[in-house]
Amino acid sequence: MDRLTIIKVGGKVVEEPESLNMLLDQFVKISGYKILVHGGGRSATQIAAKLGIETKMVDGRRITDNETLEVVTMVYGGLVNKKIVAGLQARGCNAIGITGADLDLIHAHKRPVKDIDYGFVGDVDDVNSDEVRLLINENVTPVIAPLTHDGKGNLLNTNADTIASEIATEFARYYSVYLFYCFEKKGVLLDAKDEDNIIYDLDYDLFKKCQSEGIIKEGMIPKLDNGFRAKKSGVKEVLITNHENISSGRGTRLI
Amino acid sequence: MDRLTIIKVGGKVVEEPESLNMLLDQFVKISGYKILVHGGGRSATQIAAKLGIETKMVDGRRITDNETLEVVTMVYGGLVNKKIVAGLQARGCNAIGITGADLDLIHAHKRPVKDIDYGFVGDVDDVNSDEVRLLINENVTPVIAPLTHDGKGNLLNTNADTIASEIATEFARYYSVYLFYCFEKKGVLLDAKDEDNIIYDLDYDLFKKCQSEGIIKEGMIPKLDNGFRAKKSGVKEVLITNHENISSGRGTRLI
Repeated sequence: MDRLTIIKVGGKVVEEPESLNMLLDQFVKISGYKILVHGGGRSATQIAAKLGIETKMVDGRRITDNETLEVVTMVYGGLVNKKIVAGLQARGCNAIGITGADLDLIHAHKRPVKDIDYGFVGDVDDVNSDEVRLLINENVTPVIAPLTHDGKGNLLNTNADTIASEIATEFARYYSVYLFYCFEKKGVLLDAKDEDNIIYDLDYDLFKKCQSEGIIKEGMIPKLDNGFRAKKSGVKEVLITNHENISSGRGTRLI
Repeated sequence: MDRLTIIKVGGKVVEEPESLNMLLDQFVKISGYKILVHGGGRSATQIAAKLGIETKMVDGRRITDNETLEVVTMVYGGLVNKKIVAGLQARGCNAIGITGADLDLIHAHKRPVKDIDYGFVGDVDDVNSDEVRLLINENVTPVIAPLTHDGKGNLLNTNADTIASEIATEFARYYSVYLFYCFEKKGVLLDAKDEDNIIYDLDYDLFKKCQSEGIIKEGMIPKLDNGFRAKKSGVKEVLITNHENISSGRGTRLI
């Protein structure tokens, strides 16, 4: 099977021109087929504030009322996504920027209200890769914004880490998939105070042990849960790294 | 050659839920391959105002400084485009929302500064339809936002009427292209006070005569210039109509 590398980058990297340029320089060096999945939360929060819309977060997830949905649609699907596409085109990489609504790529349903009403937040039902694979096989690079749709005309705000692992799992049926989660550190740290003390090989038992000891915490936990799930579903390699290391492949490898 | 209908709709139609729904209901009834090109100027102006950015227009064209470029990228490429895509998906039409940067569809250059500095406004150089045709032939419907790129990483704000005629001209090499310009009236009016007094068949001489007599004026002039240029370049039919008539094909036909 052909190699397909899926890179998920958080908002911070893609929202600042300098780190975005560094990311894109590294990204185009990756050989084989590629997909970029991006966030954009900081810009969304900033623009919402300028528009007088208050941002409410619960456990790191954005409460997405109707106005907030408009903001994330603009920011993720427009501003951040199209800047990346233009930047990749300038580097000779034929990119296409899409959301989960485009090509019916990712179907989701509005998260049911239990203790918290997250609003227009989508939980993924299924991924339809048919037309996207057609493009990939023509050497087109999809750039995916973290939005899905419910098939009834509603866009839904969906966590970018989850989108990356769902996409990776679906594409693993057709390609040898390498999934890289990029964040600020070089990998998962054994000691938060020592940036170089990286866990190079992380298995599920060690992850759970580190979690119970509080070494691995907060946003890293769902990221790793997503990563191990993807690995179990046939994704060849899952790597936690930063955007400077995506072409070398250094970081924390899930085993 | 297969039939391809290209519909250009202005901002007003796509920005109000009621007229957008009516448009999309009509649009999906069109048989054969389809492309939708949209504007979004009113929303851009509104959101710019909320963000404290002043909108400056010269001859109906938006002066696009860096901040305004961010607004139109968000609004055209994100908000308006993705709402249309989700609405089409809900109607069983497999849409993909793109700009001229995606798939390297439309190359443009920043308009040279003469009397007026339009800022990041693009004049079209060429259209590359290769990958978009691949999608169309799979029954995918492209929804195109009025943005182009310069190949150096810059997005450019580009008139949607121009994009529609440029796209139509390129695709006329491969398809039998029907280009419909939708606006508020049922067609080009002989008498602005009589909404039903439509010119059904308009040739170039009559256009120029009506223009010199002030019967055809303002924004309709560049629209018709674009339309006649497209017709001359191999587009099978150019129709000026409103969004309620796109499936019936009534309106002003350029001959």
